[in-house]
Amino acid sequence: MNLFDTHRPLLDAALHAARTRGHWTPFPEMPSPAVYGETAQADGEAAVAALFGRDYPLAQPGETGRVAPERSPYGVKLDIRYPECEPQALVAAALAAEPGWQAMGPKGRVGLLLEALLRIHRRSHELARAAMLTTGQGALMAFQSAGPHAQDRALEAIAYAWKAMDDVPAEALWDKPQGKHPSLVMRKQFEIVGRGVALVIGCATFPTWNTYPGLFAALATGNPAIVKPHPQSVLPAALTVSVLREVLAEQGLDPNVVTLAVSERPEVTQALATHPAVASIDFTGGNAFGRWLLEHARQARVYAEMAGVNTVVVESTDQYAAMLQNLAFSLCLYSGQMCTTTQNLLVPREGIRTDEGHKSFEQFGQDLAAAVNKLATNPKIASSVLGAIVSRDVWHRVDAAQGVGRTLLASRPLPHPEFPEAQARTPVIVALDQADAAIYRMECFGPISYVVAVDSAQAAAQLAEDMIREHGALTLGVYSTDEAFIGRMEGMGRRARVALSVNLTQGVYVNQAAAFSDYHGSGGNPAANASYTTLAFVADRFVVVQRRRHV
Amino acid sequence: MNLFDTHRPLLDAALHAARTRGHWTPFPEMPSPAVYGETAQADGEAAVAALFGRDYPLAQPGETGRVAPERSPYGVKLDIRYPECEPQALVAAALAAEPGWQAMGPKGRVGLLLEALLRIHRRSHELARAAMLTTGQGALMAFQSAGPHAQDRALEAIAYAWKAMDDVPAEALWDKPQGKHPSLVMRKQFEIVGRGVALVIGCATFPTWNTYPGLFAALATGNPAIVKPHPQSVLPAALTVSVLREVLAEQGLDPNVVTLAVSERPEVTQALATHPAVASIDFTGGNAFGRWLLEHARQARVYAEMAGVNTVVVESTDQYAAMLQNLAFSLCLYSGQMCTTTQNLLVPREGIRTDEGHKSFEQFGQDLAAAVNKLATNPKIASSVLGAIVSRDVWHRVDAAQGVGRTLLASRPLPHPEFPEAQARTPVIVALDQADAAIYRMECFGPISYVVAVDSAQAAAQLAEDMIREHGALTLGVYSTDEAFIGRMEGMGRRARVALSVNLTQGVYVNQAAAFSDYHGSGGNPAANASYTTLAFVADRFVVVQRRRHV
Repeated sequence: MNLFDTHRPLLDAALHAARTRGHWTPFPEMPSPAVYGETAQADGEAAVAALFGRDYPLAQPGETGRVAPERSPYGVKLDIRYPECEPQALVAAALAAEPGWQAMGPKGRVGLLLEALLRIHRRSHELARAAMLTTGQGALMAFQSAGPHAQDRALEAIAYAWKAMDDVPAEALWDKPQGKHPSLVMRKQFEIVGRGVALVIGCATFPTWNTYPGLFAALATGNPAIVKPHPQSVLPAALTVSVLREVLAEQGLDPNVVTLAVSERPEVTQALATHPAVASIDFTGGNAFGRWLLEHARQARVYAEMAGVNTVVVESTDQYAAMLQNLAFSLCLYSGQMCTTTQNLLVPREGIRTDEGHKSFEQFGQDLAAAVNKLATNPKIASSVLGAIVSRDVWHRVDAAQGVGRTLLASRPLPHPEFPEAQARTPVIVALDQADAAIYRMECFGPISYVVAVDSAQAAAQLAEDMIREHGALTLGVYSTDEAFIGRMEGMGRRARVALSVNLTQGVYVNQAAAFSDYHGSGGNPAANASYTTLAFVADRFVVVQRRRHV
Repeated sequence: MNLFDTHRPLLDAALHAARTRGHWTPFPEMPSPAVYGETAQADGEAAVAALFGRDYPLAQPGETGRVAPERSPYGVKLDIRYPECEPQALVAAALAAEPGWQAMGPKGRVGLLLEALLRIHRRSHELARAAMLTTGQGALMAFQSAGPHAQDRALEAIAYAWKAMDDVPAEALWDKPQGKHPSLVMRKQFEIVGRGVALVIGCATFPTWNTYPGLFAALATGNPAIVKPHPQSVLPAALTVSVLREVLAEQGLDPNVVTLAVSERPEVTQALATHPAVASIDFTGGNAFGRWLLEHARQARVYAEMAGVNTVVVESTDQYAAMLQNLAFSLCLYSGQMCTTTQNLLVPREGIRTDEGHKSFEQFGQDLAAAVNKLATNPKIASSVLGAIVSRDVWHRVDAAQGVGRTLLASRPLPHPEFPEAQARTPVIVALDQADAAIYRMECFGPISYVVAVDSAQAAAQLAEDMIREHGALTLGVYSTDEAFIGRMEGMGRRARVALSVNLTQGVYVNQAAAFSDYHGSGGNPAANASYTTLAFVADRFVVVQRRRHV
């Protein structure tokens, strides 16, 4: 049985899940030994440790030397040396591999990618450890985000790519009546052809979750792909590329259908991004480089997820304690280093109605700070929830944030029980006024939140709309017991084209999006021009080349 | 019964046709009185004549005056005066109309658009006359291209838009097990939201066929649309906009969901195209303005169909006479003023094998010229096939073409039996050599063809590939009895991402593309970045805005 037929049930289940959008996953998110194997975690950790201080086993064209750019936020010395390759050599290798990949057809490619994905899944603990050590995520979060959750997004992308390609029949008989004369009859063939070389540029914080959708969508639709990971977090991408190349080689294909481009030099990425043969770019990262790509990589279709100003509007609640707990966890998770983490909490300056009575703006700020502090000082979970700080930039930003506004909660170093050299610290919360727009309208990535006193709930809604239309957002939350106000926020979410989470008080957080159910980003505001995953994310990655002739 | 349910059978039939891609249309292409009504043609002509010399009945916001930019290639004095409106006023009106249009939802919009399309269909003769008089097309061609064939493309666009929107469920229940704890349960709603104001810029030659796909795709997916017709051919667009506004008003909607922007001043189009609220632009026209749009209208997604260098490679044939007849008709149809008309015929300089023996390059050129001349001098059909010359630019280009290379067939004025002042002339055919790349590699829109002597059939294939990759093409043809050579051309079509027609010798021409079966343009070479119609043409015109809350 070929790989497509083998994995067809998985594909069909994914298609059904994406169509109905209930909860579904074939990749269990809990790293249970019963599911993943008794020794899986230790094996994964050992496999990663075995790479420390060595040349990463990857032979690619155009290698000019080895580089080891990763610096672990946990202070672990990695020194894994990756090949640095000439951009032109990687593009040439991709172009050489393209015809064979193209000739596989949709079924061949989808089958092969599903096989590779299942192998990636079996190495979830290895990917988790690689992601944890390079991003600073806590162990459980790294497992979920770099393992099963990323695999979900990959499967989702493959499923959408298949759906879009399957919409095009391979051939048709066209039979046009001509009155009394014989019909005109033509045989037409329709071929799915990828647009060209795909470049997939990863970010430092979610090296697989944010890379897989574009990578698997591009590959499935017939494009060879060059994966350019963030220098801070190469290993998860490298392991992924290795598995793909292994399966490609096994199937008799040129492994250069997928290559890894490691470099710390921006000019290398720029050379790749502006290469005439590069037809699509998937980018996750900061606004500055995102805008550079949109400005300069004009030959390519750019799918960009950048930064936004994520906002929660607090109007009222009938579950004050649960709301605070939900918000606190959301702010603490991976030290706020998610593109979806709330930055601004807009609260009426006269305070809010709650099930515990009226709470003043001041009281809300103190209570939120207390809830965050409680979590961040809980020795059992603080380190695993907060993880470590991914870069010095974020570290300095926390310092700077303590100098603006009125500090509701100061950041302090967080000693890590396992990694003494971990760069970890607790979140900072700052109180601001509506007049401080110059501060809170700018994205400030990291464990930094602003509680902003606004004139009214209406003013909060208007302010959020203005900010999101101008600067974008991936998430928006509202707490309110007033259905009319929620309705107003829904209208605002529609106009600003941003997803809205209403009254989250249980184990779902505004910064989390579940594959097959939640669309990640709308693609309709400045934070991102594409969404995980819609037909729009896949349908323009290929064209239909037709042939016709008389029968 | 609402409009969606009323027209659901038509939608379903269109979806089936687009999925299977056999011959299908609900809009008969022959203007038979039995189908369209005994007096339909006369009524249509009278309706158009009644508009001559008058203010076109259209009341829109921001009107600053009236303009009558159309000059009929048939020499008919039209002087229909259209409102010229402030660009800002049109955009403001579109934004004001957007929420109501949005609130209709996919079913409401699709139902309304299908109703409008059927009313447009019933006015096919009026649209045909309007298109004929403004574009210079012959009567039958104008009927087909501006009437049923354009309506086919509109229906196709609506069907694809529906398919893409229907892929998103309106809501879902998300129920995630939590082991021994109660499930996490959320209700999620998914709303289709258009990206914003759509601008649809028409061309002078196919004012409905090239306008309808973008217009109906944009509208169906929830975007208000501003139609900017070419000043040369306003009336077909105006009639279309009038019907849409009439149906909108009947349904209690703001008619400014669709407005008409008429102006001869490029700065007006530029102001519309670069307006921050304009989120998509559909453009058909020349490369210069197309590239300007791609360069300057950066806030919008631009779907552009521009010019290319359409090519036929003649390697050999077993139906020499039928091939010549097919080519001749293809070159003559609407005086070569189709974006799909062949410009370059690449022929080996040592000649070709045919069922009538070996034909030298010289002989082929003479025979093709004779076939074209026979058609262009046939008093019964010449005028109706050739039509008239749309503009002075094209006229001058024909003059200029007679000064390059060796003229195989000279152009001469073609008196029109019905319109004494028609600007009509017969096609010019010029023999060139492979070395004359500076001439034949440039697009030369109009009744101008180059028969190019190339070193070999292989050289022809390579030359065509290079040209199409650099300058683009909407069509490519090959004549060959050698399946190996056809296979090589197929590979070339795949690499250059261009549709290939093989050995056309019957009543199908390389410049014709049938809706629901032929994709028009691949969207994968420089001639066009989108195709009529694929999911890629519709899927990115809207975003999904989601809401979730606990149940």
